[in-house]
Amino acid sequence: MSSGPLSGLHVLDLSTFVAGPSGTMVLAQLGADVVRVDPLGGATDTRRLPLAPDGSSLYWAGLNRHKRSVSLDLAGEAGRAVVRRLLARPGDGYGILVTNAVNQPWLDYDALRGVRPDLVMVHIAGRPDGRPAVDYTVNAEVGLPWLTGPVDSTRPVNHVLPAWDLLTGLHAALSVVAADRRRRATGRGELIRINLSDVAVTTLAHLGFLADTAVNGSTRVREGNYLYGAYGSDFATKDGHRIMVIALTDRHWARLVEVTEAAAVISALEERLGADFSRERHRYAHRDLITAVLNPWFSARVRSEVVDRLERAHVLWGDYRRTEELDVGPDSPVAASGLFEAVDHPGVGTYPVPGPVARMRGWDPPRPAPAATIGEHTGQVLAEWLAAGEAELAGLRAAGVTR
Amino acid sequence: MSSGPLSGLHVLDLSTFVAGPSGTMVLAQLGADVVRVDPLGGATDTRRLPLAPDGSSLYWAGLNRHKRSVSLDLAGEAGRAVVRRLLARPGDGYGILVTNAVNQPWLDYDALRGVRPDLVMVHIAGRPDGRPAVDYTVNAEVGLPWLTGPVDSTRPVNHVLPAWDLLTGLHAALSVVAADRRRRATGRGELIRINLSDVAVTTLAHLGFLADTAVNGSTRVREGNYLYGAYGSDFATKDGHRIMVIALTDRHWARLVEVTEAAAVISALEERLGADFSRERHRYAHRDLITAVLNPWFSARVRSEVVDRLERAHVLWGDYRRTEELDVGPDSPVAASGLFEAVDHPGVGTYPVPGPVARMRGWDPPRPAPAATIGEHTGQVLAEWLAAGEAELAGLRAAGVTR
Repeated sequence: MSSGPLSGLHVLDLSTFVAGPSGTMVLAQLGADVVRVDPLGGATDTRRLPLAPDGSSLYWAGLNRHKRSVSLDLAGEAGRAVVRRLLARPGDGYGILVTNAVNQPWLDYDALRGVRPDLVMVHIAGRPDGRPAVDYTVNAEVGLPWLTGPVDSTRPVNHVLPAWDLLTGLHAALSVVAADRRRRATGRGELIRINLSDVAVTTLAHLGFLADTAVNGSTRVREGNYLYGAYGSDFATKDGHRIMVIALTDRHWARLVEVTEAAAVISALEERLGADFSRERHRYAHRDLITAVLNPWFSARVRSEVVDRLERAHVLWGDYRRTEELDVGPDSPVAASGLFEAVDHPGVGTYPVPGPVARMRGWDPPRPAPAATIGEHTGQVLAEWLAAGEAELAGLRAAGVTR
Repeated sequence: MSSGPLSGLHVLDLSTFVAGPSGTMVLAQLGADVVRVDPLGGATDTRRLPLAPDGSSLYWAGLNRHKRSVSLDLAGEAGRAVVRRLLARPGDGYGILVTNAVNQPWLDYDALRGVRPDLVMVHIAGRPDGRPAVDYTVNAEVGLPWLTGPVDSTRPVNHVLPAWDLLTGLHAALSVVAADRRRRATGRGELIRINLSDVAVTTLAHLGFLADTAVNGSTRVREGNYLYGAYGSDFATKDGHRIMVIALTDRHWARLVEVTEAAAVISALEERLGADFSRERHRYAHRDLITAVLNPWFSARVRSEVVDRLERAHVLWGDYRRTEELDVGPDSPVAASGLFEAVDHPGVGTYPVPGPVARMRGWDPPRPAPAATIGEHTGQVLAEWLAAGEAELAGLRAAGVTR
């Protein structure tokens, strides 16, 4: 395993779907040794869409890179005993488990502490009361779908990004490293529980939603593509492209007015309205009017001219791209990042795969690589962690505990 | 400062807006000593909406809890010298800086290493080439707005949650703890750069978007409120409520068919279509038809009956709430979490504030509390970290370096 900031950390990953796997993958990218343990043949997330023509899951491959794969008969006592032995493996940085298993008494923290008294365990769940929840139900319950979409929508609009899963995964990853840090200092392990619904509602609290209701009695309403609390709007160019333009600071605003040659109209409007658009709150309050004033400048110009002018004026803007264009062109997010390499996935094809998103100067991160196949490292990990010899491995295979 | 898994970590936070502050707040909630350093009077994010009637920012208060606040004249050399002294403070766990400052040569990593050779510094930026970007421009550029919203939309639909900011903040927090871990082992510091645009495009890669285009030539299209790759749909009840229902596993699907009394129709449809809805891919392919079949069951019943039936059948579902209802009722996300306390904010009002989202059994986390006022801890931190006496503090005040 490559060395890195988290080298020396050995994580047993029994998590599935997005939250856990995305978090443990970040740990692996930072140099941790992450061993994903799956049932024989793979867990319920092994075949999730999108699939490659060979039936393998491109989604699974994307969320499980840089991990080793151990596959065991987790329904049987012998397979579970192997998991316990892996957790009991002595040494600093071992004895760490991430799971989202539901109703699995054999993964009970207190039971597992019997084999590893200083176990660090992160349990990801839907809700604090044990009832299930997933990203889409949680997102509905915190109210964002009623605030998303065109102002004249009469239905809620779901998000497409599983943001709550991804945030939960990073909270789990951070908790692993934090708990291991304390364990190194005190010798004490920790049971950490992180619920998707808690992540969502605490995040909305951090962003001021609860306070705004309690203190101001505010009822948030749909604002379409406007940015809440400042001035930001999407515009269409003459050739049908759309771009997002943001004036987050007073300087951004001054540049935007200048480049769109709107100073005289804006001044006259300010006078008529008794407003001062150099103040963020006034820009936000009059966002519809401002967009109406600026619109003709954008719709009279093709994208290339608009972009050229905005860039020269240092206005903050972004293209609305299509996801299939993420790696198309020298300005594409993939090309611009420099974090991606074209990686050949045998039997599937070649496509760009990113390295760690945190760029560290003093460390060469692991190269982007295909994810392991299910059970690819069973023998290797059992030999390495448990000093299992050929005879023992053959016995486990013969007993159907491994393949 | 309360002790916790990250006690002993001392972070100087010069970050603003959402990404940095949200990440450092999580560090503080896990027990790190986070000192936010602002210019005199506060940074550009100090007055962001929503505001309380007294003009204070509820948004700022939500993102900066559990931190101490130091305020300095950062435009002048004397104030910057104080920051350097704070970073140079000897001792394990000191010498950590998080910033999103742009074009500030005095915050150059190599310059700061002159005062603290093992400095850990996280620099959050928009794009790798130094050009600015914010959550809304980055989201446009990775293509999600064209996939969000009703299938008949002709315009992109922005998300409301600043998901890229929040994910970037957690990546930054994880990087701080990871880099400090390596520093304890090797004595080496680290410069870590995290760009919003990288976070967005690597995340979409992890979720399989790039692979799907490269391998399958897929062009993703809008799917409204359906869940990608499985069966999930929103439904309206007789009394006008909306709920999200998900069949992520085969067992979920079986329960949903049973509770909606749809088994006979579903069987007949499977036969007619040559489909097998016990398979996830077939459910996903025929999602429109399935929703049409199930719709009448929901629209014939009031919400309370629907929920009662779904709950008893253990179907995975969630209400579409409004953000202003987050803390309303015993089933509300706030009440259910148990992480919130009603906290009095002097001059503002009382509203619910959450503790850390990661629940740890062996640790009493810091109690939810109001955020500091700008500069509230200037004297305290300078005395504690720099052993500044009353005479020195008075001198700094007299020179206008502090207030």
